[in-house]
Amino acid sequence: MGSTWGKRLKISVYGESHGPAIGVVIDGLPSGIPIDESKVAKEMQRRAPGTQPGSTPRTEADLPTVLSGIYNGKTTGTPLAIEILNTNQHSSDYNGFVTTPRPGHADYTARLRYKMNNDPRGGGHFSGRLTAPILYAGAIAKQVLKNKCGTEIYGHIIRIGKVEANSWEEEEMPVIPTEGTFPQENQSIGQRMLGEIEDAKALRDSVGGIVEVMATGFPGGIGSPMWDTVESAFAQLAFGIPAVKGVSFGSGFQVASRRGSENNDHLLFQDEKLRMATNHGGGFEGGISNGMPILAQVAFKPTPSISREQETVNLDTKENVKIEIPGRHDACIVPRALPVVEGCLALALLDVLMGKGEYSL
Amino acid sequence: MGSTWGKRLKISVYGESHGPAIGVVIDGLPSGIPIDESKVAKEMQRRAPGTQPGSTPRTEADLPTVLSGIYNGKTTGTPLAIEILNTNQHSSDYNGFVTTPRPGHADYTARLRYKMNNDPRGGGHFSGRLTAPILYAGAIAKQVLKNKCGTEIYGHIIRIGKVEANSWEEEEMPVIPTEGTFPQENQSIGQRMLGEIEDAKALRDSVGGIVEVMATGFPGGIGSPMWDTVESAFAQLAFGIPAVKGVSFGSGFQVASRRGSENNDHLLFQDEKLRMATNHGGGFEGGISNGMPILAQVAFKPTPSISREQETVNLDTKENVKIEIPGRHDACIVPRALPVVEGCLALALLDVLMGKGEYSL
Amino acid sequence: MGSTWGKRLKISVYGESHGPAIGVVIDGLPSGIPIDESKVAKEMQRRAPGTQPGSTPRTEADLPTVLSGIYNGKTTGTPLAIEILNTNQHSSDYNGFVTTPRPGHADYTARLRYKMNNDPRGGGHFSGRLTAPILYAGAIAKQVLKNKCGTEIYGHIIRIGKVEANSWEEEEMPVIPTEGTFPQENQSIGQRMLGEIEDAKALRDSVGGIVEVMATGFPGGIGSPMWDTVESAFAQLAFGIPAVKGVSFGSGFQVASRRGSENNDHLLFQDEKLRMATNHGGGFEGGISNGMPILAQVAFKPTPSISREQETVNLDTKENVKIEIPGRHDACIVPRALPVVEGCLALALLDVLMGKGEYSL
Amino acid sequence: MGSTWGKRLKISVYGESHGPAIGVVIDGLPSGIPIDESKVAKEMQRRAPGTQPGSTPRTEADLPTVLSGIYNGKTTGTPLAIEILNTNQHSSDYNGFVTTPRPGHADYTARLRYKMNNDPRGGGHFSGRLTAPILYAGAIAKQVLKNKCGTEIYGHIIRIGKVEANSWEEEEMPVIPTEGTFPQENQSIGQRMLGEIEDAKALRDSVGGIVEVMATGFPGGIGSPMWDTVESAFAQLAFGIPAVKGVSFGSGFQVASRRGSENNDHLLFQDEKLRMATNHGGGFEGGISNGMPILAQVAFKPTPSISREQETVNLDTKENVKIEIPGRHDACIVPRALPVVEGCLALALLDVLMGKGEYSL
Repeated sequence: MGSTWGKRLKISVYGESHGPAIGVVIDGLPSGIPIDESKVAKEMQRRAPGTQPGSTPRTEADLPTVLSGIYNGKTTGTPLAIEILNTNQHSSDYNGFVTTPRPGHADYTARLRYKMNNDPRGGGHFSGRLTAPILYAGAIAKQVLKNKCGTEIYGHIIRIGKVEANSWEEEEMPVIPTEGTFPQENQSIGQRMLGEIEDAKALRDSVGGIVEVMATGFPGGIGSPMWDTVESAFAQLAFGIPAVKGVSFGSGFQVASRRGSENNDHLLFQDEKLRMATNHGGGFEGGISNGMPILAQVAFKPTPSISREQETVNLDTKENVKIEIPGRHDACIVPRALPVVEGCLALALLDVLMGKGEYSL
Repeated sequence: MGSTWGKRLKISVYGESHGPAIGVVIDGLPSGIPIDESKVAKEMQRRAPGTQPGSTPRTEADLPTVLSGIYNGKTTGTPLAIEILNTNQHSSDYNGFVTTPRPGHADYTARLRYKMNNDPRGGGHFSGRLTAPILYAGAIAKQVLKNKCGTEIYGHIIRIGKVEANSWEEEEMPVIPTEGTFPQENQSIGQRMLGEIEDAKALRDSVGGIVEVMATGFPGGIGSPMWDTVESAFAQLAFGIPAVKGVSFGSGFQVASRRGSENNDHLLFQDEKLRMATNHGGGFEGGISNGMPILAQVAFKPTPSISREQETVNLDTKENVKIEIPGRHDACIVPRALPVVEGCLALALLDVLMGKGEYSL
Repeated sequence: MGSTWGKRLKISVYGESHGPAIGVVIDGLPSGIPIDESKVAKEMQRRAPGTQPGSTPRTEADLPTVLSGIYNGKTTGTPLAIEILNTNQHSSDYNGFVTTPRPGHADYTARLRYKMNNDPRGGGHFSGRLTAPILYAGAIAKQVLKNKCGTEIYGHIIRIGKVEANSWEEEEMPVIPTEGTFPQENQSIGQRMLGEIEDAKALRDSVGGIVEVMATGFPGGIGSPMWDTVESAFAQLAFGIPAVKGVSFGSGFQVASRRGSENNDHLLFQDEKLRMATNHGGGFEGGISNGMPILAQVAFKPTPSISREQETVNLDTKENVKIEIPGRHDACIVPRALPVVEGCLALALLDVLMGKGEYSL
Repeated sequence: MGSTWGKRLKISVYGESHGPAIGVVIDGLPSGIPIDESKVAKEMQRRAPGTQPGSTPRTEADLPTVLSGIYNGKTTGTPLAIEILNTNQHSSDYNGFVTTPRPGHADYTARLRYKMNNDPRGGGHFSGRLTAPILYAGAIAKQVLKNKCGTEIYGHIIRIGKVEANSWEEEEMPVIPTEGTFPQENQSIGQRMLGEIEDAKALRDSVGGIVEVMATGFPGGIGSPMWDTVESAFAQLAFGIPAVKGVSFGSGFQVASRRGSENNDHLLFQDEKLRMATNHGGGFEGGISNGMPILAQVAFKPTPSISREQETVNLDTKENVKIEIPGRHDACIVPRALPVVEGCLALALLDVLMGKGEYSL
């Protein structure tokens, strides 16, 4: 039951990279929310292969077909299902990894788990391609949040390899990266990040990074300790994205180095409105939202598919062997992953927000 | 439904800091597992107030009473319920925080969420005291894992304030901290960490830190992508512990700075046994365990209760005011939190392991 | 995870008949609901042994102790936990059933399931005694429903053995049985029902029956097809009560004999208010409430504990043997079960009602 | 979240009667189970419109297209998704029911619930057509059960209107109805049942009925009290099928009229094998399977779509009006519903069986 998520808003993701189609069923949406499909398409485009720096040359239209749940341009309130056809497969690229698993991939663990019955082509259900339906669900959640409480979600890249940028920890309204370019508001840092990606690519290697996402306008008082919080829900979701190895909120791992007197977010009335003087907590105290912007970071490992020679094993002959992985690879998955992370934040916020009616019956 | 967790093993935590009792119901344990209550007591003792460096002087026996689920020293397989009586409350210490919320605490968000109906004494259900029943559940999960697959769980502190220690990233069998002392195997670093805590205390301040936990002997092939993984389950659980702001696995946020060629864990046969050459993935590929040690890090903010003067608001008069928080505080929660994090790892491992029977029916 | 129920309102029931205590944790209640503990006690009293015709002479005070979740007489919104001490055990009565299982009891299936590790005394976790915490949760749910939407829940007995009474199918406001007497509004039928119980008792036998429950004032438009309906939720809950073998709604199994033209509930405006002309559907169309009274029936088998000689097996010697069951038995469980069924209806209504906020965000 | 079901095996059903497609995602299947698609197609055919006595003349090929989860003829273990295209819609037939709701249909409750945003064409997501994906999931579950423990599922009709047939209560291996004909093993009763349907049809009316399903070969010791039982799971599922008003097990509502001495299923060794002398319990004691055949009954109301004149209201003008429902109707849904009920039993059995690994870790 691993590909189903949510306490109230249930999403059920299906598909294999080289099967007929991938998609998602979203169950539990409120009815009557107008869905702007062009905005959804724009989100999908941000993740689509071939459009981002360092991304795989595989091109897929990635146009979702709505099968149910939208009628007259609005959500019906019954399950919203979509499919995305797979059209550009090169399955022959992927033969053999069942026997000589790629380092850093799920080839070996999938074999342990599924006893060679899973579809290995293109990574099957483990493929990063499966983040497209997650993103679709997230894009819908964004529109619901915007409609219901004016919440907006932003994201940028704060690290690629050795190049680091400022967090939005001190910001209340993010300096939004110019659309259509690399999602880092400081152009000079953005250029250096792109340089890291190019360098990795030139060496037939890959590079990791960190994204940061922010939600503005999310109401305070939402969530329930201990495990019905945006933090728990988002972390659970985000660790379902391939290559994610860390999740943090507000000042993240930095808080460990601080004193309480530095880290505590003081309350104050400013212009007769209550707020926190700082936002080290990333919008939460005790797991419940406090009205400040929600802020989270997600760390991605370098994409494991590199065409440099690597060491692995032959599981049949039980020998140590060397492997070179041909085919299409992303030198850096981070730019394409950013909208998926934003979508996961939207899903987590919406699922926990939907619980509000339980306690304010 | 925030205080209930688990897909298969359900834990339901109850209680308020200054109510009659706190406790937990654990539903779904296998039957016939011998429970060594002295080992459980030892775990509880590691978290009990007053026994750890920098901890609050509040002392509680914290002895759990088993109400059901253990018979003749073994789990019955029906719900295991315990209660821990609250005996040493000083409720008067906590009056007033409903009006002048403490910075960094849930006083304000709880007010938004519960409309002043929650029990504010000692933080009520938000209190760190509620980690005692979570730890109890974790201590039981440890014994089940040990019994069923020989899994052992270890933990140490890798950061207190500015003092950092080595991760177990390169270790396969942790250098275990000597029992009964500060949980850091390098004594000189341990002393410096204690110094950080003492310094904070002397300044009526507090300090944060990072713990790292490892599970050895956990079988490979366990878990299902995307969200039925130990990573998702552990992250969800850990963010339910008060003061946690970050969770990571394996090399954690470090992976973001690396190239794929550095970070990929190569496979090899060594002494005819398959293993990974390194463990940057922390025991997982694609969310499924690979047989290597499970490794995770959790970042804690400095405990927000400090007796130094802080700024906050009076919610009734709508004025900005100053506050000094009297009472018993931990200068550093990290040592007491470590066994709770270990317990959360045990719970996550067990819950996901219990799913194995679903696919190997 | 069998003893945990609920999508939004989670209840987790624990305890064994002859262990230290039984109880329940109720997670997810709205905050600020005044709880009248004397009304709860009255409900508990309706189920308590020794107070109902034909019930076991075992007497238990059955007074629940609140451990958390109620503060200043109102729900806090955090988990409500209670315990009921077991005080009047005669464990020696129950030895031997592990070897010679009682017909109609769970002795044999429990042995298959728990491999002799479960607590067999008094039926352990299978005991009808465990309906006391379910009833407690139901009594709380009744008060929340009453407070939030004026919903009231009623119940009566419509069959004991061969004696049948009218359903409330044609009623909109039930003719309430006089308090404190047998819950059947027709006194002459009630007397004959009591006669059935007395007859069974005289023969050291037992007898089954059917209860019917009704909720008035429950709003229309609540629930979601297919499985987030009061029907699904109530059926799931009710089959968790020992001895239940059938659940139906509205006209129940009678609908199978009817034509559509007889059975369809026509809509009409009456005094400018929309209603159904009849209530064969029991308050639902398509699983969603329609504003009519909610009506359900639950069939109970005769309690299997009878002191007449019965045939069974000795599982050790593998011989067919005869058994006589000494001890305290209910000749008819139905009167004591009625408040539990009412409570289950309250829980189902509340859980589904709590979902309303999800779609009317 | 109403259209998602299951504790371990998650099914997520989507679609509207007249939208592009309907379908289901099945998450959590074991891997490596050979799927005989021709057997699945045969099951689908049993439900398909136009092939059963008294069924609607709407014809749909109802051929499911597998989108993921089957590879090389076997389950992959990752989500199995299918779609069934809608090809034969007559949407104009259904206009107007939003204003003048059909008695016995969800038109009015859907309007309350979805505020006129749901797709009303053909009943939208409420349509009986949505049982096709449930049946698909059930047909897969049947094959998994057969493969894993030899379990077979049978079904027959035991009531149509006034005509009743014998239950399989006394049978251990059902007298299987001859394939391809009306599912009632007594041909003379079957003819009279068909007569009931014809009579109803001739009067432009409809008629209800009861189906009974049996599973043989299901192992004992499966399930956990209170709510992780086949009884709870099946009841929850079955009440999600449109028109179901009652669910019972074993002797069902008959047990209410019995004495304990008549009803208790005695244990005995027969040919050195343990069994029950009778099967009034329908295969369960205490919610746990006992190795006897699983037996359940489900009552269906007469299909509400009849072309006779009926009374209803105009919700806009607030007047009482008369309505005649044109279009294609089933005079009796029961024969087409039978395979769906069998499928629900298979799903319930499989979901609970999958829990076995949790306790026999």
